[in-house]
Amino acid sequence: MARTIQSLERGAAVLRLLAGGERRLGLSEIASALGLAKGTAHGLIRTLQNEGFVEQDPPTGKYQLGAELLRLGNSYLDVHELRSRALVWTDDLARSSGESVYLGVLHLQGVLVVHHVFRPDDSRQVLEVGAMQPLHSTALGKVLSAYDPVALSEAVDGERADFTERTITGLEEFESVLDLTRARGWAADVEETWDGLASVAAPIFDRRRMPVGAVGITGAVERVCEGEELQPRLVAAVRDTARAVSRDLGALRF
Amino acid sequence: MARTIQSLERGAAVLRLLAGGERRLGLSEIASALGLAKGTAHGLIRTLQNEGFVEQDPPTGKYQLGAELLRLGNSYLDVHELRSRALVWTDDLARSSGESVYLGVLHLQGVLVVHHVFRPDDSRQVLEVGAMQPLHSTALGKVLSAYDPVALSEAVDGERADFTERTITGLEEFESVLDLTRARGWAADVEETWDGLASVAAPIFDRRRMPVGAVGITGAVERVCEGEELQPRLVAAVRDTARAVSRDLGALRF
Repeated sequence: MARTIQSLERGAAVLRLLAGGERRLGLSEIASALGLAKGTAHGLIRTLQNEGFVEQDPPTGKYQLGAELLRLGNSYLDVHELRSRALVWTDDLARSSGESVYLGVLHLQGVLVVHHVFRPDDSRQVLEVGAMQPLHSTALGKVLSAYDPVALSEAVDGERADFTERTITGLEEFESVLDLTRARGWAADVEETWDGLASVAAPIFDRRRMPVGAVGITGAVERVCEGEELQPRLVAAVRDTARAVSRDLGALRF
Repeated sequence: MARTIQSLERGAAVLRLLAGGERRLGLSEIASALGLAKGTAHGLIRTLQNEGFVEQDPPTGKYQLGAELLRLGNSYLDVHELRSRALVWTDDLARSSGESVYLGVLHLQGVLVVHHVFRPDDSRQVLEVGAMQPLHSTALGKVLSAYDPVALSEAVDGERADFTERTITGLEEFESVLDLTRARGWAADVEETWDGLASVAAPIFDRRRMPVGAVGITGAVERVCEGEELQPRLVAAVRDTARAVSRDLGALRF
């Protein structure tokens, strides 16, 4: 069994550090944040810079993430089977629902958005591919937590932050939400993550019946809900899409 | 002066290999492509896998790029000053021109697309953020080659592939295209990269008067051109946008 390579782990730690919080850091800040000697940190940063993973901001001399990460992230998407199978179905869902569509997979302690279709109107919208969503409060995250044991343990063991007055943070209440999700086959988020926004999501399974992702819509709570309830026609549209993508991935009809 | 770190360079080489060509490779294929012992390659891959940079495809056991690259690529975009300054201006350009808008920067031997605004109609379009374009044949690439000496040497020294019957590949002809680009302040690509498509692009400068990127539109040659010529109203719209973004970056009025 091969061992892991320390300098590669340290290089990854530099990139994670630059991806969070400040995002532009000097050499001493990086060295002290990672508990490394300045010379060691310098060697790592110089190598990462040569490879295009880190860039130096000319006015300040501070370091930030580099362009090669964008190129490689795009290559990751190109080879993503779930995403390519879902492209047409998610477009159809955006048209039929009139809302934004998100496709997410479990990554680290959250949901990584791997595809985002804009709401089909003329409004200015920001692409969220590559963004992370929390597991415990979003519809995508609840679906993954309900069906994927790895996501479940991340959501149970992790911190469940309090985003709005409606966010469910207690463990017992969260677990009963997941029971409900499994019983209904879909999850909702009504202003539990963002004030004014509601989401519905459903699970996607592959040919081995493994939950490989979740698909959902997000929109203004006034459009997505009727009173306290999610609009049944939107729930049905999301679940139809999840079933269609699952079938395309080789899952048996269900 | 710090030295570079070999195992970090080798890790980056594994990622580059997985980003090009086959995209799903077995351990032996990776080891032999990089001229490494199988044990060395295994240690690199295991570490990259632990860090989320590489994933194993369950049905085949082959390796492919991992989700952490998408997350980091998105963080790179978040901190990208040129891109954030250009967001509103490029939206306006898509509306006024009716065509797709691209913002590109020099990366490796090509143009990296850091922002892409869809053509404002209902057609199905694929997001190209993170994709690469060639320097010698595209409008964005010609602009960068004309104004950025590093891009110029990449375009002059690199291979100038022959994409269509109209691609300019000869060095002398290419250099006179760059002279024309500098004289006019903009570049065009009329079916030199993709049959049926034409582009116009102009340079963006920062407060130090350095060329930091290019912005352009791409669309059907029937819409973008009038006979053999680019539509003057589209050229003007692209140049207005490039000037507006440059001013926002602190460049002097010009």
